Formats: sequence, C-alpha cells, structure tokens
Amino acid sequence: MKEEQTSTEVKLPKSRKIYIETNGSSVNQNKHNLRVPFREIELTPTRNHEDKLEENPAVRVYDTSGIWTDPDEKCEVTDGLPALRREWIVARGDVEEYEGREVQPQDNGYLTVGAEGIAKEKEEGRLEEFPALKRPPLRAKPGHNVTQMHYAKKGIITPEMEFVAIRENLGRQAAFDAITKDLRDDRSSLHHQHKGESFGAAIPEFVTPEFVRDEVARGRAIIPNNVNHPESEPMAIGRNFLVKINANIGNSAVASSIEEEVEKMRWATLWGADTVMDLSTGKNIHATREWILRNSPVPIGTVPIYQALEKVNGKAEDLTWEIYRDTLIEQAEQGVDYFTIHAGIRLPYIPMTAKRTTGIVSRGGSIMAKWCLAHHEESFLYTRFREICEIMAAYDVAFSLGDGLRPGSIADANDEAQFAELDTLGELTEIAWEMDCQTMIEGPGHVPMHLIKENMDKQLEICGEAPFYTLGPLTTDIAPGYDHITSGIGAAMIGWFGTAMLCYVTPKEHLGLPNKQDVKEGVITYKLAAHAADLAKGHPGAQYRDNALSKARFEFRWEDQFNLGLDPEKAKEFHDETLPAEGAKLAHFCSMCGPHFCSMKITQDVREYAKEQNVEAEKALAVGMAEKAKEFVEEGGEIYKK
Amino acid sequence: MKEEQTSTEVKLPKSRKIYIETNGSSVNQNKHNLRVPFREIELTPTRNHEDKLEENPAVRVYDTSGIWTDPDEKCEVTDGLPALRREWIVARGDVEEYEGREVQPQDNGYLTVGAEGIAKEKEEGRLEEFPALKRPPLRAKPGHNVTQMHYAKKGIITPEMEFVAIRENLGRQAAFDAITKDLRDDRSSLHHQHKGESFGAAIPEFVTPEFVRDEVARGRAIIPNNVNHPESEPMAIGRNFLVKINANIGNSAVASSIEEEVEKMRWATLWGADTVMDLSTGKNIHATREWILRNSPVPIGTVPIYQALEKVNGKAEDLTWEIYRDTLIEQAEQGVDYFTIHAGIRLPYIPMTAKRTTGIVSRGGSIMAKWCLAHHEESFLYTRFREICEIMAAYDVAFSLGDGLRPGSIADANDEAQFAELDTLGELTEIAWEMDCQTMIEGPGHVPMHLIKENMDKQLEICGEAPFYTLGPLTTDIAPGYDHITSGIGAAMIGWFGTAMLCYVTPKEHLGLPNKQDVKEGVITYKLAAHAADLAKGHPGAQYRDNALSKARFEFRWEDQFNLGLDPEKAKEFHDETLPAEGAKLAHFCSMCGPHFCSMKITQDVREYAKEQNVEAEKALAVGMAEKAKEFVEEGGEIYKK
Repeated sequence: MKEEQTSTEVKLPKSRKIYIETNGSSVNQNKHNLRVPFREIELTPTRNHEDKLEENPAVRVYDTSGIWTDPDEKCEVTDGLPALRREWIVARGDVEEYEGREVQPQDNGYLTVGAEGIAKEKEEGRLEEFPALKRPPLRAKPGHNVTQMHYAKKGIITPEMEFVAIRENLGRQAAFDAITKDLRDDRSSLHHQHKGESFGAAIPEFVTPEFVRDEVARGRAIIPNNVNHPESEPMAIGRNFLVKINANIGNSAVASSIEEEVEKMRWATLWGADTVMDLSTGKNIHATREWILRNSPVPIGTVPIYQALEKVNGKAEDLTWEIYRDTLIEQAEQGVDYFTIHAGIRLPYIPMTAKRTTGIVSRGGSIMAKWCLAHHEESFLYTRFREICEIMAAYDVAFSLGDGLRPGSIADANDEAQFAELDTLGELTEIAWEMDCQTMIEGPGHVPMHLIKENMDKQLEICGEAPFYTLGPLTTDIAPGYDHITSGIGAAMIGWFGTAMLCYVTPKEHLGLPNKQDVKEGVITYKLAAHAADLAKGHPGAQYRDNALSKARFEFRWEDQFNLGLDPEKAKEFHDETLPAEGAKLAHFCSMCGPHFCSMKITQDVREYAKEQNVEAEKALAVGMAEKAKEFVEEGGEIYKK
Repeated sequence: MKEEQTSTEVKLPKSRKIYIETNGSSVNQNKHNLRVPFREIELTPTRNHEDKLEENPAVRVYDTSGIWTDPDEKCEVTDGLPALRREWIVARGDVEEYEGREVQPQDNGYLTVGAEGIAKEKEEGRLEEFPALKRPPLRAKPGHNVTQMHYAKKGIITPEMEFVAIRENLGRQAAFDAITKDLRDDRSSLHHQHKGESFGAAIPEFVTPEFVRDEVARGRAIIPNNVNHPESEPMAIGRNFLVKINANIGNSAVASSIEEEVEKMRWATLWGADTVMDLSTGKNIHATREWILRNSPVPIGTVPIYQALEKVNGKAEDLTWEIYRDTLIEQAEQGVDYFTIHAGIRLPYIPMTAKRTTGIVSRGGSIMAKWCLAHHEESFLYTRFREICEIMAAYDVAFSLGDGLRPGSIADANDEAQFAELDTLGELTEIAWEMDCQTMIEGPGHVPMHLIKENMDKQLEICGEAPFYTLGPLTTDIAPGYDHITSGIGAAMIGWFGTAMLCYVTPKEHLGLPNKQDVKEGVITYKLAAHAADLAKGHPGAQYRDNALSKARFEFRWEDQFNLGLDPEKAKEFHDETLPAEGAKLAHFCSMCGPHFCSMKITQDVREYAKEQNVEAEKALAVGMAEKAKEFVEEGGEIYKK
C-alpha cells in the first residue's frame, strides 16, 4: 500500500529465482542452450496429527520479471538488460545491421506546440536520452522474412519456441512424469485437477517445442519478438497456452515522466504482466520508448498512430501514409514487438456508429474515422496493408489488429459496426498470414455477460483462430472506480472461452491516469482472472498452485498461504490488521473465528475422530474376525459343516 | 477512503430520497396505503452541438438505506426505527402478544469463559443494552401460520407483497408506459436494452402485486419479514426479481464492538446491502443483535447454532435440541428474519469429506459434523426439522438451508459430499413448503468457472426453484487479499444463471475481520456483480442506469458520471488525482488523453462531420432535383417525351 514503494524494494518472501538450463540435449526435445527463468516459492513442512513433520514441495510459478529479480545479476536501468536473444537472431544469418533512421525532434513530440513555443520547450522538459551505446538496428536481408511464423512454416524450431515450451510447462517435466490419473482424481492430492471445458481448444498435456512451432505456423499463437528487442524473454500468446495479460503504461500529455514510466514497466512485470503496451502521447515519446525497451524483459506493444498524430500537430486529417510509414520504421528499429493497427475501420462502417450511445471510443479508431471522413477515402492502413506487412516481416513485429469500433458502453455491445470491422480483420489476417506475419486480433470493450461468448465465437471463426486479445470486457457501466472488477469478470469469462491475452483495466479507467498502486491492482486482478480462465479450461497443472495454497490454508500455515498468493504483502498486511502478533501466524485458529470457534480446527478434529472411528471399526472388524475364527475352530474347523 | 468516515457523514451528491405513495388506489393494482422509498439522482442538462441545453431526466435507483438517509426524518440509534409494518401485521388478526422468554446471561455469552472469570467479566466489557422500550414479542395465535407464503397460498396479497412490487419496478410505471419496442432497439435511447438470456427464468415486463404473491406461493421467492422486525422495509429474494446481495457483519471473539457492528449494518445498507447477516460469536451476542434489529431497515439473518454453541462453552458435542430450540425462539422473538440452518448434513455424508483438500469449512457445518460424529446419530436439525418449521411459521422466519458441506477450495468443488447434502436440502424444502415456511438454499463456496452452472442447474432441479443464495463462488484460490474479486467473478456468473441473492466476500476473506472500508469494497463489488447479472438476464429496465451513465461519460458530464456510479466519492477522488481543478470536470476532454487527443472529442467531431455530410448530401439531392426539374421544364414539360 506504500505509494512510494519501488520494484526493487519489493521482496516476495520465500521466493527465489531459478532457471531450467538445457544443454542442447534431449530434455523436452531441446536443441539449444537455454536458461529459462521461473520463480520458486519455498514452503514450510506440515505438522501432521501425529506431530510429525511432512515436507511440502516448493511451488514453481511463471515469472515475467526478468533478471531484475535475480539477486545474482547486476543490472542498471542506464545500461539496459543483456541482449539475451541477440546471438540467436544473428545466428540465423538472415538479418543485417544498417544505419537506422535518425531521430527527429518531432519523434519526441516537439512539433505539437505552436511555433513560438518550440525553442523554449526544446530547452525545458526535455527528458534525458537513454545513455548506453546504441546498437545499429537489424532488419531482414533483402528477400528474407525473419518472423517466427516464417520459420515455423518452414519447419524450423527456433530457440524462442523452445524457450516458450519450457516456460509454458512451468519446468514440470519431473512432476509431469509422476502424475497419474489417480492423483488427478484424488481431491486431497496436490495434482488433483478438474476436467476442464475448453470449448474446442487443443491444449496438450505437455508442451513440446514442436507443438509451439505448429501453433505459430498455423497462426494460432504468436511469439512477439522484434529482432531489435533482443532483451526480451520469449513468450507465447495463443489459445492453447496459458492465458496472458497486458498492462498499459504511458506518459500522457497531462501527467507522468520517463522515470515513472520505466519504473511502471518494471513494476507491472514484477506483479506478472506478460506484455506491456507503451501508450505514450505528447512529449518525449521516442526517448521514453527507448528507455522502456532497453529495460524490458517482456514484449512491448505500441499504437504507432498515436505518435504519428503528434507529428502532425494532433490533426488527424493531416496524417499521411509517409508519416505513418516512417513512424512504423522508427518504432520497429527501436524494437517494438507488436503494433496495434486499426486497419479494419472502413469508410462504410463509420456511419454505423452514428446512433450509438458512445460512438467511437477507441482513440486509434476515432483518429482513423476522422481521417476517412475528412478525405472520404478508405484509410491508408487498409489500402497499404501489404506494405505494412512487409515492414512487419522485416523486423518481426507482430500485428495486433485494432478494434477501432469496439463498443464503449453496454448499449453499443455486439453491434453492426463492431462486427463489420471484425469481418475486415478476418480478411486482413489472411493477408498477414500469407506474408508470414504474426497476428493477433483485438476485442472489446464493454459487453454484458450474455453477449461475451458471441464475441469469442465470431472471432475464432472469422479470424481462423488467430489469438484474441481483449480489453476486459466490462460487464456493466455503473461502477467507475471499480472497472478493474467490472472488467475482470468479463476478462475471466472471455479468457475461459478462448481469449489468449487479456488487456488489463485499472481502477482509474475512465477517470484518470493510473498510479503505481492502480497498476498493481489492475495487474493482480487480471492475473487472477487469467488464472481462473486457465482453471476453467482445464489447463494441465494450473490447479497445482490453488491446491498448494488451499492445503496451506487448511493446515494453518499462514506464511505459506500468503507467499503462495499473488500478493503476499497485502495478504500478510490484512491478516496482521486483526492479529498482529507473530505467534498468531503459527496459531491453529484463524482470525475470523477466534480460538474457540474455528471451522478448520473443528474439521481437523472431525478428521481425527473419523480416523479413530475407522481404527475402531477396523479393530472391531479384527475382533469380529478373530471371534469368527475362534467359532470356526470351536465348531470343528471344517469348511463344510456336516 | 477515510477509515473513520461514518454512514451519516456520507452524502451521495445530487441524490435525494423520494417515495412512491399509493393511496389504496388502483396504481399497480395496489390496495394498501404504502410509501415506498427510492433514491433519485438528479442530472445536469446536455449541451448539444447546437449549443442548446437538453434536459436529462433524473435516474431512480433501488434504495436499501432506510430512513437513515432521509433528511426529513429524525431518527436516533438509541430509539430505533419506526415500526413501519406493525400495523399491517396486527391488522391481519392472527398474531398475539405474549410475555417473551427472559434474557439469560448465557444469551450474551457469559458462560463461555472459565467459572473463575465470569464474575469479573460480568462487570467488564459488558455492552449496554438497547435502551428504548421493548415491545412484547408477537407470535402466531394457536392454529395460525403467519408466513408470507401462507398468505400467498391463500391468495392474499399482503402490503409486503405490494411494497415489493413497487420497489422492484423502481417506480417506473410512467416510464414503462412510454417504452416502445423501437426505443428498446435504438442504441442511442436511454431505454435501449439488450435481449437477455435468463436460462428459463420467468421475469415479467412489469412486476404486479399478484405476480409477487404467485412467486411467493410457489416458493420461487421469499419476503423475509419476521413479525417481530416491523422496522424492516419489505424486499423479495427470488430468481425473477432483481438479484440481491447480503453483507455479513459480526462481533467476533477476537475484535469489534457493538457500536461498530450497528454502524457496519448502516454502512453496508447505505452502499446497497439488501440483507445483513449478524454472525456474531462470543460476548454480547444478544445485545448486539437487539441493537442491530431495532435499527435495521433490511432483513437480518443469523446462524443460530453459533449462539447455541456459546451456550455450551463451545463444545459442539454438548449441544442439545432444547438449547438450540430455545435459541431459535430467543432470536425469533427479537425479530431475526432468516435463519441459516444446516439441517442437510447427514451422518453418512460426513466421511465423504475425509479425502478433501479442505474438509468441512462451513463453521455451522463443522459444528454439526462434530456433533453427529460424537453422538453417532443424525443431527437434531434433521430429526427435528418439522418442529423447527413450526417455530419458523409462528414468527415468519425464513429458512436459509445451510450448505455445511460446501467446498472450501477449488479442489473440493462439486464433489459427492456437496451434492449429497443438496439432495437432502431438496427434501427439506418440500417439508418446509408443506408447512408454508419460506425457504431459500445456500450454495458454495469455491468453484472454478466451468463448474458453476452445474451448481445452479442442480439446485433449481432438486430444490424446485427455491431461491438460491450463494457465497461467491470464488473462482480461484490463489489471490488472498483479492477474494472479493475472485468471488465477484463467480457471483456475477451464478447470479446470471439464476441465483437470487449473492452473499458478499470482502478483501479480508480468509485473512481477518473486515473493517468499514472492506465492508464497502465488498458491498460495491457485489452490487456491480448483481447488476451485471441483471443485465445479462435481461431484467427489464436494468440497463437504464448504464445508458444514463454512458451518455454522461460520452458528453463529458463528469459530475453526472460520478453521481450515477455506485461510489460517487471514489470516482471523483480518482478523477481529481489527475485533474484536480474544478474546471476540468467541465472540460471537454478527459484526463487520460489530454486536451489535444481525446477519442470522445474526436467522435463528437465525427458525428458533426457526418451530420454535415448528410446535410450536404440532402442539399446536393435538392440541387439535383431542381436541375432535373429545370431540365424537365426546358425540355417541354411533358411526361412522355415524344
């Protein structure tokens, strides 16, 4: 709850960074030397009813925080992260270094004020550039395509795919081998898991590198990995993988600073954001992005039209393909891993929004709508789509095809405009795939619960199972200040139905800019929603953490319960408000019921009682048998009585 | 956010208390003189694109806060609320006053400490008794049954039923008459509403008193209204009414005080709790309940076994039917409106829980399980069920048949023990109905999303559509500190599927006792979940508030947006963190995008542009027509050219 807390100050108790290391050997069919990070939560032993200690195995969880949370690594924000993937990229022999585009003043938004202000503003408020040496950018050699999809289609398993496979399995090869169907069905086993309902997803028992390759090849998953963001740790977004979450950050025109944004990125990934979108507008936009990319262990997404708009003083109608194209290249050279591109807004769809309650609420969508109307033409995003694909393919930037006509209110959910755009996104997906570009599809927005599944079903059908990436959806409009919850409900549901990544919503949605506390609240709400979706889909192993936490709870291992949760600090704080003493966390009663009246304690008594009863019953049975035996002997000891 | 804020200090901005008054006239088929409370939120006008002001009608919302929020009423906690229903009850001529049971020291828990402590404790820590004059209790005259179900079955429409009918319609008779199908389908109309999916519920377009009567008669709804709690404002719990929420409060043995608990009740109802359960244990249990009941405008529920256990020093095995029965009467005389009774735990079900991850987590359930095992007998709740029904019928206390074997973890969801108990609850419902007792059924607990619907479907089938009343369910175990959200997800879903009342969960669940901030967070989370359920069911008129709020949002009527939300104060606070100036709330841009870059502003431009385009098109058409006309004349003006 400390507003001023930084990501480096948070220590998740009893957690340690571990790595699964492959030596290009046969483990999981791996061929490359990889070091895949996880977090392991150490547990205390259980004191059983015979007062003996039973060990509880450490619980391994997915870790998005990068080496920032590895105490053995020294890393400074001013240096950036090591270029983990650089060797892999170069080794493929299909990229070349070149002299990139020179950074222009307008890249940092210094043309959005009136001419008289420029000179002055150039001096003031200009943020420090990222100080470490810049690598020259990489791009595909002429005639080459460097996307993960391209390799996948050619049958190549990249180190990125192998990395993803190990990561998705939570490194549980050993555990996997030991799990039997009996354990799955036994509710007291840590390996118990309900059979899920995945609505036709094809989730494997164990993720192999070949499975990852196949999913990427057929477009059902993406690995957003720009060749110029070698600092990132590969991850997959797809219906047959763990449900991911995205956190948005950005230095809006009204508030915020670079340092805050970099720290927000680290903060969001510390709590579990799988990707981060930098939605900066206004000043210092290029410099901010550079700081974020060089320090981010997760893929970074952007909406390039925001920056392009800054370059034309905020006048949508002045946007041109040339300015937009230049912005794509600028950002691709920096290393942005996916671009939101609102290419699905076509001219005839715009009037369909006129009778809506909330018109067009997507920023990118309204910019493009305005452009289309001003020019009375189809947008250059649509007409130049193949040219955009060429750029995406040269750097391996993934598409996030934007839903510019998404509903901004319950009233506007699932309307004609929204689904017309989705049809176009389906067409564009086919083109992108034809050009081996990785593609995901953005989805709404505000949708009442009963209309959520229609969104998912249509998306799967129209976009050939390309990963769906939704904002919420919010299931009611009446709770400003609580929209992380109104949307967390929709997010959990649509994640269950098949959405691959959930874009978080913070409590400040519709009201203001999230601070760090809001970012954390948003990330954790979405982590729990994504996990609820994994459970409902029956994702193998997903229930293990729930089981371990519930076992700890039942056994009054308070510290283990806190530490296994998504936010150990808050759980402990809440507990300590009622029972602050250190002893209370070892006490065999909980703070809700007090020492005389605790259901869990009573249940333990019941269990012991039941056990005794069983022992009694066995004894009785034994006695009975003995008596029968005695009788048998007394009666002559013959099998057939005469 | 102010921890110390009291319910009297909160003023919901631009809200006023209003009453629909009937004069025993024909309005809504009413026959009684009623005064049904609502809250009305006044809105500012819209400034349209022609700079003209358009009025926005005030929005009427359901109000659970009683006359505490009516500035025209003077009411003191030490006096209690006026006995709104007293006349109605007495007028039926089937109750009699009698000299009630005398309050015993053990009623207030003064037997749960060792003998040496009693004298001392009697002096210290004893809380003040409710000071106003006590009415002698009422009960049914011999041979009479005073339940709402009994009247309903006889075809009698009580004032309680009429009250409920008006309340459920949100007093929208006038609005109702004006709503056409066209308005329903027009997304820009405040009356737009999506067709819902109610899974076979029978929600009427307009709730009449006769409909209420019929629902109560067939057991599909209850109106929990003990004849000794005449202070309460009638409300219905049923699948075909608005989804309700319950807030739990209680002076646990470890913390809390009477004053706090009374204030918690007022606080919870201020934010929207439809009923409140007093789960007090330990000391002062009787006195606390008296304070709460005399001041509560909403039905109060309890779990009588908690108090009975206090009376036997916390030893479950020492419980007897006589002590329990005496406790039921004690609480019925005080006015408790519904009792949670765990009569469905049968002896053979208990061993079914032995292999669970978290055994029996219901407190009432574990007490009864312990009793059953200790005596190796069916519990007196089960064997004496008809006798319990007689008591319930004499005071009109509603059953809330407890789910003592509900799952306490994801692992234990939907298991044999849980559903075995549900079967028994179905049997008991039939008996209760046979004796005209109002009955609802409690449900889980911890359930992954994909197993939620099975709970609802089985409950509907087994318990003949008796109202379902669930705790959450929590959809994952891994987020202690955020269980209002893990459970809000499940609550919204099960509410959609048909659950009539959702028992809230606060952020402190599993960790500690909720403070006022937690109670508010829990209530608001559950209000939004219940509303999301109403929307998905297609409850008539439910979408009106969403539409009004979204319209305000789209038109930058910031104050209206805040005031229409569930928590105006928090929304305003969040907004002001980013843009504190008063002017900002009138500004035509929002704090996320800044003045140059706001999607809503752009959309307004788009609309105006589109409108101009239309005007142009019409002009062009007119010009074209004129030219054609001219041509026509010039060419001779004859219809058939030669």
